[in-house]
Amino acid sequence: MTTIPSMIPSPQQTKNSIDMRPIYIPNYIPNPYYVRIFDTTLRDGEQSPGAAMTPQEKLDIARQLAKLGVDVIEAGFPCSSQDEFKAVKMIAEEVGNDVGDDGYVPVIVGIARCNQKDIETAWEAVKHAMRPKISTFIATSPIHMEHKLGKSKEEVLEIACKMVKFARNLGCHDIQFVPEDATRSERDFLYQILGEVIKAGVTTVAIPDTVGITMPWEYGRLIADIKANTPGIENVVLSTHCHNDLGLAVANTIEGVRVGARQLEVTINGIGERAGNASLEEIVMALKCKRYDQFDGLYTGINTQQILKTSKMVEKYTGMYLQPHKALVGANAFVHESGIHQDGWLKHKATYEIILPESIGIRRSKGDGYVLGKLSGRAALRKRLEELGFQLKDDEINRVFFNFKALGDKKKRVTDEDLRTLVSNEVTHIEPIWKLGDLQEPIKLVEYSVTTIKNGIDGIVTTYVVICRENSNYESTSTLSQENVHPTFSGTAAGTDVVVSSVEAYIAALNKLLGSKE
Amino acid sequence: MTTIPSMIPSPQQTKNSIDMRPIYIPNYIPNPYYVRIFDTTLRDGEQSPGAAMTPQEKLDIARQLAKLGVDVIEAGFPCSSQDEFKAVKMIAEEVGNDVGDDGYVPVIVGIARCNQKDIETAWEAVKHAMRPKISTFIATSPIHMEHKLGKSKEEVLEIACKMVKFARNLGCHDIQFVPEDATRSERDFLYQILGEVIKAGVTTVAIPDTVGITMPWEYGRLIADIKANTPGIENVVLSTHCHNDLGLAVANTIEGVRVGARQLEVTINGIGERAGNASLEEIVMALKCKRYDQFDGLYTGINTQQILKTSKMVEKYTGMYLQPHKALVGANAFVHESGIHQDGWLKHKATYEIILPESIGIRRSKGDGYVLGKLSGRAALRKRLEELGFQLKDDEINRVFFNFKALGDKKKRVTDEDLRTLVSNEVTHIEPIWKLGDLQEPIKLVEYSVTTIKNGIDGIVTTYVVICRENSNYESTSTLSQENVHPTFSGTAAGTDVVVSSVEAYIAALNKLLGSKE
Repeated sequence: MTTIPSMIPSPQQTKNSIDMRPIYIPNYIPNPYYVRIFDTTLRDGEQSPGAAMTPQEKLDIARQLAKLGVDVIEAGFPCSSQDEFKAVKMIAEEVGNDVGDDGYVPVIVGIARCNQKDIETAWEAVKHAMRPKISTFIATSPIHMEHKLGKSKEEVLEIACKMVKFARNLGCHDIQFVPEDATRSERDFLYQILGEVIKAGVTTVAIPDTVGITMPWEYGRLIADIKANTPGIENVVLSTHCHNDLGLAVANTIEGVRVGARQLEVTINGIGERAGNASLEEIVMALKCKRYDQFDGLYTGINTQQILKTSKMVEKYTGMYLQPHKALVGANAFVHESGIHQDGWLKHKATYEIILPESIGIRRSKGDGYVLGKLSGRAALRKRLEELGFQLKDDEINRVFFNFKALGDKKKRVTDEDLRTLVSNEVTHIEPIWKLGDLQEPIKLVEYSVTTIKNGIDGIVTTYVVICRENSNYESTSTLSQENVHPTFSGTAAGTDVVVSSVEAYIAALNKLLGSKE
Repeated sequence: MTTIPSMIPSPQQTKNSIDMRPIYIPNYIPNPYYVRIFDTTLRDGEQSPGAAMTPQEKLDIARQLAKLGVDVIEAGFPCSSQDEFKAVKMIAEEVGNDVGDDGYVPVIVGIARCNQKDIETAWEAVKHAMRPKISTFIATSPIHMEHKLGKSKEEVLEIACKMVKFARNLGCHDIQFVPEDATRSERDFLYQILGEVIKAGVTTVAIPDTVGITMPWEYGRLIADIKANTPGIENVVLSTHCHNDLGLAVANTIEGVRVGARQLEVTINGIGERAGNASLEEIVMALKCKRYDQFDGLYTGINTQQILKTSKMVEKYTGMYLQPHKALVGANAFVHESGIHQDGWLKHKATYEIILPESIGIRRSKGDGYVLGKLSGRAALRKRLEELGFQLKDDEINRVFFNFKALGDKKKRVTDEDLRTLVSNEVTHIEPIWKLGDLQEPIKLVEYSVTTIKNGIDGIVTTYVVICRENSNYESTSTLSQENVHPTFSGTAAGTDVVVSSVEAYIAALNKLLGSKE
């Protein structure tokens, strides 16, 4: 097996290279503060129901993962289909040989069950990478061994060791062993099988909470126990692999790293089987935010500026759309709604923000960061009106605020266009009447959206239309405005017929446009 | 202030009533194993950007929360708008007086800043409930006191005590105090202000991790420290309130309960400001799954059978749609994709499932629980074909499996209709040619969906059409089928024009239908 190199860094070396990615040695990380990020978006993430990707899509994501700087890319399960083999091979050949100026190139992993065919196929797929790796797994819990495998502990132990040696004999010198369902396995058997596969030549062992059942302190204890009781564990890198069935994948992972795991298996956006895996972005940012405060200086090699871009790409390619309140990368993660929060945030961002959104690649423009609705206060309203070019006096603000609150009670979000209307109402009377004769100039369709029809054909379709005048003479709508504004007008409608609904929405928008004309 | 009753239960009483909800005493829980669930979906949850609801919607949700059995409903922020006041008042009057056979009726809370107007308005809104409560908050962290409030510690301390007494003088005897941004507050000041408001008469204190920055062990330590150092803390119930900015709200909350918090502030689906709050369903099910194993017998009064229904209602009313991999209530939470998982799950559900989906109100029918795609294996294919009525021999299965894998490489999800086509291919030759002359019988549109157009009018719209023949003579398509099947045919298309895309999808489906006719 690979032996530990004698080049353990001196404290001084460690201190100097604290922010650098150490050289890659399969079974040993030269810097004790460095945490390897093992991304399995393309393997466990792709196991999300309905998330299968084409080989080209997988290659695109692998390229982006390399830009993000993950240490290890688990590219797929080569034996599962011909296209999957092709995808892993392409990733190994292209991304697995694209060496950066600093010597960085990701390890490319193919997963394999503990059998010759899987392992051979995985090796054929990954072997052209500069740093090829096979991850092989077999279940070690009583329930899995009895009901799924129909095998005894002795048989499982024998198969595992035999297959690790088989992989080494193929020429693969970087091998991970995964005792599936480890968190429900008998401790003594776990120590035994891990000790044996370490002797047989593995470089890393990953401890999966396959069904996502452990509490953070339990998982931390398991990792600590494995470190304390497994013969030879000091000769390999120990990895976490947590599932999110009870919403604890991230917490379990960071408990693992606290007690000595130095490789974390994660996915972008936390996608994966059932409720998914530990989310890369949450773990990386937790480590970054609390590096010295809570993690004794631990760090990763991730370029956090690439997080948002990677998240968006994975969301698009897998169709696994994120909920608005997904931490860090959800649409609402950096948006403030209530008046109290908005007021605080406008005075000093850190009152309600612990992370600069820019640090994960989010670019905010004017007006981003808060939305206006019934819970918003005067401070946010005034700020937004100023951003829209309206300089109002206090009594004007008060009148607009009263109508703004009334409008907020009626609709979820008060838009910029609504605000312009409210302000205009203070100086003019708008009568939104349908007057076709006035419609001489061309109307431009700015935006059009249709919601998904659910529950079959009897469902309701909602359409949303935004229009403006082509004619730029109408660029300024308000006498109160200090700068040119491009007036846009929206309408929505709902019904069972998409065409009728679209026309209704269009007419609603048109009425607003015509009403604002004078 | 409310004094602790002398009726501390004997161990025997405790044992006998272990699964019952203890009687409600504001500042004391008679059963030491009972954990109060304080739901703030209608307050902090509604603060999700864009999630504002009408009073009627809030009332509907409050009724459902009572069915779910939450101990406390935080109904809103009465001072924030007229409709909000109305909503809280309606909930107090109706849900707050609807007493169950077992004496259960939820506490109704209105939130208020530490000022007279907020507190008076909150009291007016909640006072008609059988168990009215005011929760009042003021920031205690240096950054919030300096930048948001512009007040000194001494001023904040004085305001807090004065306003608690003010609320008591209005007639409110159940008052919660919340030191906003507690996790960034100075410990000594926190002990001091909590001690003083306890003396002033509060019944519960909630410790918010307002910006979601703490690690689980840190939050647990904070709760333990407050218990150990705050004068009079034994006279009130201590509550958690965690945010999810780093994906740790659930973990932080369960660390809090482990060290002695006995009220947990949560929201349905984990919605709330920014990345949301701790999710009720995840916490309740974690406590339930690990009650004796990890939580020394702690339990809640939640009727878990109502979880799914409540989740769906909140999703619909707030428009905060869940990602497929949301734990427990996401579309994929109990669905298995990979062949290995499907094989294990089909042999024995507990190999990959730790919670019966039925326990949270999910009803599964045949074929639910797994989807077929490129990662699926032979076992799941065979099972699904049997469920569809196809009894195939091993060599037939093998041939279908080969084509199934090829198809899986091309599309994300292999549907039942795809399977029927694959099976038919084994006995007939289907030529999917557009032959208009054959289209004599009527075609019925079964399903039609359109994806949202994103990024303005230049975006792509994807349409999906499912059709079948009206004529029931064609009910059985396959000679291999052992039961009648209603053949349906799907088509999809994408383009910038919704009408063109729809027609293309329809033609694609029609070609499939015609091809299968012989």
